Amino acid sequence: MDNLSDEEIYNDRNRIEPFVKAITRNKHLFKDKIVLDLNAGMGLLSVLASESGAKQVIAMKANSYATEIMKLNNIQNAKLYNENVREVELNCKVDIIIAAWMGNMLFYGGCIQDVIYARDKYLNQDGFIMPDKGQLYLQSIEDSQYRKTKMNFWDSVYGVNMKWMKQWIAKEPLLESIKENQLNSDEQLIYEINLQTCTLKDLSFSNQYQVKIKRQDYATGVIVWMKYSFTYTHLPIHVIMGPTKSPYWKPVILYFREELPVNKGDKLEGSLAVKFESEELLQIKLSVHMQHYNYVSYFKLN
Amino acid sequence: MDNLSDEEIYNDRNRIEPFVKAITRNKHLFKDKIVLDLNAGMGLLSVLASESGAKQVIAMKANSYATEIMKLNNIQNAKLYNENVREVELNCKVDIIIAAWMGNMLFYGGCIQDVIYARDKYLNQDGFIMPDKGQLYLQSIEDSQYRKTKMNFWDSVYGVNMKWMKQWIAKEPLLESIKENQLNSDEQLIYEINLQTCTLKDLSFSNQYQVKIKRQDYATGVIVWMKYSFTYTHLPIHVIMGPTKSPYWKPVILYFREELPVNKGDKLEGSLAVKFESEELLQIKLSVHMQHYNYVSYFKLN
Repeated sequence: MDNLSDEEIYNDRNRIEPFVKAITRNKHLFKDKIVLDLNAGMGLLSVLASESGAKQVIAMKANSYATEIMKLNNIQNAKLYNENVREVELNCKVDIIIAAWMGNMLFYGGCIQDVIYARDKYLNQDGFIMPDKGQLYLQSIEDSQYRKTKMNFWDSVYGVNMKWMKQWIAKEPLLESIKENQLNSDEQLIYEINLQTCTLKDLSFSNQYQVKIKRQDYATGVIVWMKYSFTYTHLPIHVIMGPTKSPYWKPVILYFREELPVNKGDKLEGSLAVKFESEELLQIKLSVHMQHYNYVSYFKLN
Repeated sequence: MDNLSDEEIYNDRNRIEPFVKAITRNKHLFKDKIVLDLNAGMGLLSVLASESGAKQVIAMKANSYATEIMKLNNIQNAKLYNENVREVELNCKVDIIIAAWMGNMLFYGGCIQDVIYARDKYLNQDGFIMPDKGQLYLQSIEDSQYRKTKMNFWDSVYGVNMKWMKQWIAKEPLLESIKENQLNSDEQLIYEINLQTCTLKDLSFSNQYQVKIKRQDYATGVIVWMKYSFTYTHLPIHVIMGPTKSPYWKPVILYFREELPVNKGDKLEGSLAVKFESEELLQIKLSVHMQHYNYVSYFKLN
């Protein structure tokens, strides 16, 4: 929701509607509160926060249309800034921070660092963030056809030998969703983050997984997909960017070094480690163990 | 073809294949020639040019993989530069310039200025550019449903009055293709450019159009789509990015101020003027005349 431009408001309803619901159906949270909107853009969410009873709205990264949108909706308690929250010194604390901090695989391409910065500097002790939770899930997949086609392509690209690329391609996680019938295990929660308390250090992790294979098949890798939640709302709002349908942020596909023959009931085990270098660079390490198969693969999302 | 990364080579075959064909099926053009590749990226086209007989290939904007790709293909006569052609001083003239200079509506988002620069500075008198010609075509369309939906959306966006946006939305040309049955006139060539001779001034133009309406309908605007050609090849190669299917560069939809009732055989007349401010900013003026309808609309592509 980098700035909520007109094209985004018109096209990305899947991203915007959970925010709209979180604000407009939870007026009790906004009454007399000071709200900080980190990516105001045209000011849509700022207007809704104000109309929901906020005492004051501070809108960062507001674009040139926002002033007019405020006027048109008789919003008089919004302070608009073009700048990012790091570039401005605010002179008050806030009760609610609204921010689409999410990116692919939770953090990639998002703005989690801004949220942590704003929270530590401006959020009141009993204040909260919207959305305030994020989760990653992992599932095993069968995707050998696509992977093979994509890898073999480099053997001869219009007659040019580009085999050398294969080593790099293998390290590029795919940002793509997959077909339902390519999922061959149950899903497992592999990472969870609480925006209220997390530190920069928590954005890196190394966690074990163990998924149960559903059918006789090959496991070519895993898909990691995400969920984020507004839990301070009257009814919690959970938004799933799933493995087969992810209307905005994409899941990440990580291939094993080799495809593994698996049987129904097998337990595929391993670990997923993500090192958060920045919002533009995640280092990923995936290990997998099953019987005599033991592989470790390294990826870079940047 | 901004740099021809691996994702682009894999996914954008529609853009790449005409170049591949222009090079590999026209070895007679490359024999003993010096070739300047303006957007080498991984070096695919540079390798093909060298293999087609070029004496030397100068590859600009080569990425970090290009050196290895050259080695792997035993290319020893390619000089790689990471820089743009403007940032380097070459010490020889060239016979062929390869450049995907095209953008949406021919120039938007492309790199035509680099090509003109390189041509004037380095191209031999009997040298040529690939591709060397570009054309724009105009057709009348019926698109009122989509336009209305899109405009009315701003009356109440999740309850927020954003009517003010309508004036701006109306000035934004759409970069979209359209359905076959929404075209309601014949097509007309409205602009043509020859890369061999054009100057920066030629990128701006003001030309008349007259299209013939095919059925009783409404005309809500025009669609402007493009074609580019390699005419120095043994058989000319024409690439159409049409109104209904444009695998890469998009056509531009420009709406009239009001929709016009039209009948079969009517002649819809007017003019299209484009002022090329830069590759990132085109000013567009569209006029339309028919019976007592006379409208002028202004757009900005940026």
